[in-house]
Amino acid sequence: MHFTMENGSFALCAIFLELALCWAFAMFVDYTGESIGIVVESDLDRVRGTHTRDHLSSIYYYMFQDVHLTMVIGFGFLGTFLKRYGYSSAVPNLLIAAVTLQWATLCQGFFQMQRGKIHVSITNLLHADFATLTTFISFGAVLELTTPIQLIVMVICEVFIFAANEYISLDILKISDVGVSMLVHVFGAYFGLMVSCVLRNNRPEKESVCITLPTPDLFSVMGTIFLWLFWPTLNASLAQGDAQHRAVINTYYSLAASSVVTLAIGLSSFVDKKQQFFTVHIQNSTLAGGVAIGTAADMMIHPFGAIIVGSIAGLVSILGMVYLTVGSRINRKFGIRDPCGIHNLHGLSGLIAAFVGAIAAALATEKNYNYSLYRQFPARTPMGKTLDYWDLQYHVENVQPGVGRSALCQGAYQIAALGTTLAFAVVGGLVTGLILQLPFFNQAGRNAFTDDEP
Amino acid sequence: MHFTMENGSFALCAIFLELALCWAFAMFVDYTGESIGIVVESDLDRVRGTHTRDHLSSIYYYMFQDVHLTMVIGFGFLGTFLKRYGYSSAVPNLLIAAVTLQWATLCQGFFQMQRGKIHVSITNLLHADFATLTTFISFGAVLELTTPIQLIVMVICEVFIFAANEYISLDILKISDVGVSMLVHVFGAYFGLMVSCVLRNNRPEKESVCITLPTPDLFSVMGTIFLWLFWPTLNASLAQGDAQHRAVINTYYSLAASSVVTLAIGLSSFVDKKQQFFTVHIQNSTLAGGVAIGTAADMMIHPFGAIIVGSIAGLVSILGMVYLTVGSRINRKFGIRDPCGIHNLHGLSGLIAAFVGAIAAALATEKNYNYSLYRQFPARTPMGKTLDYWDLQYHVENVQPGVGRSALCQGAYQIAALGTTLAFAVVGGLVTGLILQLPFFNQAGRNAFTDDEP
Amino acid sequence: MHFTMENGSFALCAIFLELALCWAFAMFVDYTGESIGIVVESDLDRVRGTHTRDHLSSIYYYMFQDVHLTMVIGFGFLGTFLKRYGYSSAVPNLLIAAVTLQWATLCQGFFQMQRGKIHVSITNLLHADFATLTTFISFGAVLELTTPIQLIVMVICEVFIFAANEYISLDILKISDVGVSMLVHVFGAYFGLMVSCVLRNNRPEKESVCITLPTPDLFSVMGTIFLWLFWPTLNASLAQGDAQHRAVINTYYSLAASSVVTLAIGLSSFVDKKQQFFTVHIQNSTLAGGVAIGTAADMMIHPFGAIIVGSIAGLVSILGMVYLTVGSRINRKFGIRDPCGIHNLHGLSGLIAAFVGAIAAALATEKNYNYSLYRQFPARTPMGKTLDYWDLQYHVENVQPGVGRSALCQGAYQIAALGTTLAFAVVGGLVTGLILQLPFFNQAGRNAFTDDEP
Repeated sequence: MHFTMENGSFALCAIFLELALCWAFAMFVDYTGESIGIVVESDLDRVRGTHTRDHLSSIYYYMFQDVHLTMVIGFGFLGTFLKRYGYSSAVPNLLIAAVTLQWATLCQGFFQMQRGKIHVSITNLLHADFATLTTFISFGAVLELTTPIQLIVMVICEVFIFAANEYISLDILKISDVGVSMLVHVFGAYFGLMVSCVLRNNRPEKESVCITLPTPDLFSVMGTIFLWLFWPTLNASLAQGDAQHRAVINTYYSLAASSVVTLAIGLSSFVDKKQQFFTVHIQNSTLAGGVAIGTAADMMIHPFGAIIVGSIAGLVSILGMVYLTVGSRINRKFGIRDPCGIHNLHGLSGLIAAFVGAIAAALATEKNYNYSLYRQFPARTPMGKTLDYWDLQYHVENVQPGVGRSALCQGAYQIAALGTTLAFAVVGGLVTGLILQLPFFNQAGRNAFTDDEP
Repeated sequence: MHFTMENGSFALCAIFLELALCWAFAMFVDYTGESIGIVVESDLDRVRGTHTRDHLSSIYYYMFQDVHLTMVIGFGFLGTFLKRYGYSSAVPNLLIAAVTLQWATLCQGFFQMQRGKIHVSITNLLHADFATLTTFISFGAVLELTTPIQLIVMVICEVFIFAANEYISLDILKISDVGVSMLVHVFGAYFGLMVSCVLRNNRPEKESVCITLPTPDLFSVMGTIFLWLFWPTLNASLAQGDAQHRAVINTYYSLAASSVVTLAIGLSSFVDKKQQFFTVHIQNSTLAGGVAIGTAADMMIHPFGAIIVGSIAGLVSILGMVYLTVGSRINRKFGIRDPCGIHNLHGLSGLIAAFVGAIAAALATEKNYNYSLYRQFPARTPMGKTLDYWDLQYHVENVQPGVGRSALCQGAYQIAALGTTLAFAVVGGLVTGLILQLPFFNQAGRNAFTDDEP
Repeated sequence: MHFTMENGSFALCAIFLELALCWAFAMFVDYTGESIGIVVESDLDRVRGTHTRDHLSSIYYYMFQDVHLTMVIGFGFLGTFLKRYGYSSAVPNLLIAAVTLQWATLCQGFFQMQRGKIHVSITNLLHADFATLTTFISFGAVLELTTPIQLIVMVICEVFIFAANEYISLDILKISDVGVSMLVHVFGAYFGLMVSCVLRNNRPEKESVCITLPTPDLFSVMGTIFLWLFWPTLNASLAQGDAQHRAVINTYYSLAASSVVTLAIGLSSFVDKKQQFFTVHIQNSTLAGGVAIGTAADMMIHPFGAIIVGSIAGLVSILGMVYLTVGSRINRKFGIRDPCGIHNLHGLSGLIAAFVGAIAAALATEKNYNYSLYRQFPARTPMGKTLDYWDLQYHVENVQPGVGRSALCQGAYQIAALGTTLAFAVVGGLVTGLILQLPFFNQAGRNAFTDDEP
């Protein structure tokens, strides 16, 4: 790993950033009630219904630990297939994770602040992990384009925009996206591609860095396998009760189906033609089922529905690879290049997830879901002081009044959230790309970050 | 990885299989009560006594996740030591896992169907994982002999036979095999060796593929270490309450003992003679203690008993390596070859496990086990409408009448189950081997699946 | 891996050891009440307040499994960066783990014996894992100096001394060291360095083995990342209730901060000068925050306090690398050499941890901690039969009388425990080093254990 910054500007930047984070933590962040031995009932209710304090922590903790592991090992090693970027993919990921985990606590906490304080619990760490996931996905698109300083600036911009979009989607539009396929995968993919597009179009020699051919590698297989194994946890970690069961089961079968389809096509005739390139991307496409089931993972789509979604996602992802990634006209025109194939894995599959989620939401009835419908889609709870609400209160304890949305209306809101997510990702990505072009951040030599060999 | 099928026959086969699975899932599979918010008491009782719904899912989920991880990472990378098969061992494992996880749900569910529906919960996923483990073990024996189509056909045959044997052993013979040493390890090893024997004897050049010498490799060390670490979970995941404690503790000490013995012998004078070959197999033999304690893992064999079993298993496994694996007369005579040493790790250790389990079962008394004896060996519960049964009901809640077996009788049944398992494995393996020889499945070039280099 | 012992003396030693362990287990070790279906209330209370038997086992089990994983995978692969010792680092670690896990059960149990029996539960396995961690740290210092027999003898001496020091610190001095930074990291580092010092000064050619330059390697990155991810679990696994929350959160932010600082400095100007050496050690320094927060991890130091501690630890660790590790005068004078940089990661950071812990303990008041103060620092509980104690009993159930220490006094005891730990480590290390020089253990060829290539 060669870092060609002659001056210590990166060190100064990073240390200044750490000081700023430390100051912000001293000002705004403190333990939540759970961590100082006080049980705050409203807090508990918010996260997981009826558990007692200790169990809550345990259950959440292991979910969190699994997500944490997946994220860093899975994504850290997924990028190692690029021969020149093997070592460089794992270490910057550690840097990104270390910055994001702190900064996301502040950004996401900012939108949930109570009396000027952010109260952190293990749930916050879990949410910060999802922010980190987003930055990892975007990093896949700009892997060979950014200097360390640019990378940190990108991460700081992205996490803030991500947190804003998350707040709008979940707290204002009140959509359901348990596997964060829209909020993380769609957002991360299109944000990264936009930044990549700006950076690439402003480089003198546009094509010179495009010759890297990925080589199959056991480390990237390991990354794939970790993600494959832990994706059910990823999709289930934010769900509750019986919805968590469904999220695990649906994701499990969706992944299995997308793997069979992807490997079937990938290992057959296609491979002979452009072999070197494909073997690696095939691995990634096996994960498409996990992304595509994300939004609807905890909805009542039944195991065979999950298998259908997984199969379609695998098919789309592998076709996307053939017609979009490999030197297609579309890419050449816009100067987009996508060495890790994140558009096929995260972008396209995320779009499928959004539509599957919208359809499943538009078909959800109280008959299918029983009263858990109102936990799944809180906005569908009848408005307070109506006859329906009183009737519901009679059957379910502690239910908060909602806005009485219909099934179709909820479906429409799901699509609306996809729209706002795409808008935030594209505009945010372009603006961030332009910020990275500022002379101050752009001073270090190009391509400085990612060469394994000189 | 070079796949030399010119036509897309593999792709068509696999996609047709996926369509068939999807249809079968639509017909037969649905969520269990837990996953749709209904608490089915009988269901809960069946799996884990007194837990509430949510905790149940959590505890089972993490067990499942650990088993899942172990299986794919552990076995996926265990095979990477074969130089030519490194990359090829991890990717086919993903394919096998993806097919088996769906197909095992159907096969195992078929024997537990209620009103024509298979109700899947996380417990089913855990059981499907054990079916996958079985296919992985068998795959180790046929690694260099099958084409992708043959592999899928083998997996489909094997899982069905495995599920039938599992049903007979557990539900009809009512034996105890918590670490599935008989049902998975013995079955998988002998099934695979039989298939390998048929395939190898029908090849024109019998010896040409035998020259691959394994080379020590950090990936295979990683596979070994993962298995070593998670074996206590593997053996404990199907146990309950205090039996789960014992399963963890016994496996832990058995593995430690077999590692010391194996490394002691392996790293000493033997090594100098045939060094290249051994270093890898030594790694695997460290795991023999985990297999050998399997059946008796949750029985009252005490920590020192576990150490004795582990030591013997380590010794047998390493002697098996010297006298059975490396070009011995027995192997040459029958045309068997076992590049991964699965006979030493899974076959021999599984046989030890079966006998240790039978002895421990034959020595089990109510004095040692207290009333948990009847949870451990349900067939030993007195028959209904007897004085003993009424007396037991007075002390233990919710106990189902059994068949009033004596300790010796239970021990005999344990041995009987070993017999049926061996019969199913050998006959099933031979038949499957012959099916794989059918021209339709045998059309692709030989050795097509497993070469890393051209 | 070449093992040049001509005779089977190592095999005989190891097998004799295993027989001795087996005898000792048969004499002294049995299941604890939990594992035979008897609930021993006092036992339960000791470990985790109000849980029922089954949950207890589950929660502890997953903590244990994570610690177990971290330890062997993390430390096993951390050493793989030394080119000549890659393969050799992972296999001896397995041997060390197998021996220590059994021997630590006996040593640690010896100090907690009840009526001549050691009752093992999963908690014992967790504690044995921490003993193994200690031996791994020391092994890092003597990696290239010991033969297999010497290694086993060292482990046996070290674990006994470690258990004695643990007993004195926790049960007699009654200090708080939840992340075992003193008991494991400081002890392991200085013990190993002392053994290394004795062994190196008694070799004919002192400098010939010093030319190994570490090369960056993805396996060691993986080791680092595993440790980075699981350090919160490592520090939290012995904590209880809300203290466990704090331990996770504090460790999480401390690690993030130390990573940013370490990578900032490490990836900047420094790197260009002595690049090859640094890239690997930078990885390790990212972990300094986890060690440095260890002792105070579950105390009320607030997230920003954790960030400050982590930043300082990262800075000290990386400066230690520059001025202490790389051919400094101090090292050359004493003949110490530290190829894995364990002094910077474990030694220095452990010292920081001890002082941070002492300060945090000296500032702890009932106002900050509420009544959980007396669970955190049991010695601060008022003495029995005093007015304060009766008052406390009125508010908290099941509180045992303590010795009524003041905050400052507790802080002083924390420092005293650091002193005894250092004394045990240094004296124990020197004595052990001398024992290893005995002709019987020193007979095999030098450097026999650790060469990957001849």
